[in-house]
Amino acid sequence: MHQPQDPDFEARVRRSFARQSVMETIGARLTRVAPGKTTVELAVAPHISQQHGFVHAGVISTIADSACGYAALSLMPPGAGVLTAEFKINLLAPAAGQRLEAHGRVVRAGRLLTVAQADVEAVDGERRKTVAVMTATLVTLEGREGITD
Amino acid sequence: MHQPQDPDFEARVRRSFARQSVMETIGARLTRVAPGKTTVELAVAPHISQQHGFVHAGVISTIADSACGYAALSLMPPGAGVLTAEFKINLLAPAAGQRLEAHGRVVRAGRLLTVAQADVEAVDGERRKTVAVMTATLVTLEGREGITD
Amino acid sequence: MHQPQDPDFEARVRRSFARQSVMETIGARLTRVAPGKTTVELAVAPHISQQHGFVHAGVISTIADSACGYAALSLMPPGAGVLTAEFKINLLAPAAGQRLEAHGRVVRAGRLLTVAQADVEAVDGERRKTVAVMTATLVTLEGREGITD
Amino acid sequence: MHQPQDPDFEARVRRSFARQSVMETIGARLTRVAPGKTTVELAVAPHISQQHGFVHAGVISTIADSACGYAALSLMPPGAGVLTAEFKINLLAPAAGQRLEAHGRVVRAGRLLTVAQADVEAVDGERRKTVAVMTATLVTLEGREGITD
Repeated sequence: MHQPQDPDFEARVRRSFARQSVMETIGARLTRVAPGKTTVELAVAPHISQQHGFVHAGVISTIADSACGYAALSLMPPGAGVLTAEFKINLLAPAAGQRLEAHGRVVRAGRLLTVAQADVEAVDGERRKTVAVMTATLVTLEGREGITD
Repeated sequence: MHQPQDPDFEARVRRSFARQSVMETIGARLTRVAPGKTTVELAVAPHISQQHGFVHAGVISTIADSACGYAALSLMPPGAGVLTAEFKINLLAPAAGQRLEAHGRVVRAGRLLTVAQADVEAVDGERRKTVAVMTATLVTLEGREGITD
Repeated sequence: MHQPQDPDFEARVRRSFARQSVMETIGARLTRVAPGKTTVELAVAPHISQQHGFVHAGVISTIADSACGYAALSLMPPGAGVLTAEFKINLLAPAAGQRLEAHGRVVRAGRLLTVAQADVEAVDGERRKTVAVMTATLVTLEGREGITD
Repeated sequence: MHQPQDPDFEARVRRSFARQSVMETIGARLTRVAPGKTTVELAVAPHISQQHGFVHAGVISTIADSACGYAALSLMPPGAGVLTAEFKINLLAPAAGQRLEAHGRVVRAGRLLTVAQADVEAVDGERRKTVAVMTATLVTLEGREGITD
């Protein structure tokens, strides 16, 4: 569906993700990168939990926001940087299991603003359950020193 | 303005916050607790950053969500648990400086649903700047085994 | 996918929609009702426009909110009423053409809270374009006098 | 607090509001215009109601969105147009009484994006109650033919 403007989009997205040190802190990895789509996976672990032992809503947001942001970046022109303007997340069920997968996809890629959505699934053995949905607005930054992805 | 239903609200909020292990992981502390109001502080550090070196939007969400959730819990009846149904955050400026402060306040406390808002300020020496605003919906959980705060 | 608890769900949804007098004011009709899904259609007309001649974002929200709300109601038990707790909408493109179609679908139906999403399409002859996406949280009301759907 | 870039901001905001024909349809008026702030008032009436007789959430959104949008426009440079990128609204209580007042205020005015918030109050005789809160993202449009405010 989406045509990347940058033929090097996958390597570029992976390089930028690798600079997000919070991802190592929480234990998240970027697994899939396609034009307008990404998947970020997170191992469920005690150090990212809230008070009832589930993954904290903010940590779920962290991987969903990055899934949306990098889905958006995959379609941006070379040299541009990506920034989150806002997002909204609904938590549908407690996040538990072995891992979470945040699947981001671009809904509309504009010159300046991109809207992306993510579904976050909890994977427990063979079972999958959608635990959160996000909608995010991303900004294409061009010509800002130090802000390139 | 707000009358807590639980005279022990402050100790209860602090005990619950202390069980959120993600807070130690990112370096956040609950500083202020008042009826319907809390402040969560976060030291800015490299291990919570995104690709441009600023604090990741998901980490900002983590402290803002907890500030909203514990502002809500401070007004809930004894034995109840708090759960985030959804939130929305707007990022206003890059989050940098020495620390962030998320100030949560209850806008409306219902029997079942509470709406809270948070402003997140970046503090850099004497300067303060609002870097994010959140609106969250919290659920009062009663009678769910293992879900008490 | 979704099993309605009320075998009379379709007639019930249509009766409730018919009581929303704002729908006649703006010119909207409920066309499709299925378990967990509805479509609300709106004729594009001058009396619902904003300053540039497009359909006002609030009017787009009106049909998308009702599409979400009635998708939720279609799965609620007999006697319950539906109420919107909150929604978020992203406007993707100017809303013009002959008509708008808001397609609502339930993402998760809980006992108390339902999350639904809607896509709003602008239809212009043979062309269709998604002009907005909404995510909404709906509340199931039981035992409130006068609030039944 | 906010310095308008356009000395003619008030007349300009009022002219643009007057072109929103939906406002006449629902019965809304722009009462207050100040730098970064506006108030839109709506007479409660049967033709804007939802199924339980309260003002429809979409109509509340319509006045809150315009209050945010015109608060944003009041700070934009001459010749620019304003567009809503997205908003989120929480409904706190049923909207009834004589009239609603949506009070919009700019939280951050950027060159390209403005974030604004609105509180919507229901006024019933001497009583005032906040029935909704909105956060919106507005876009400054420059150099688009036909899109000026």
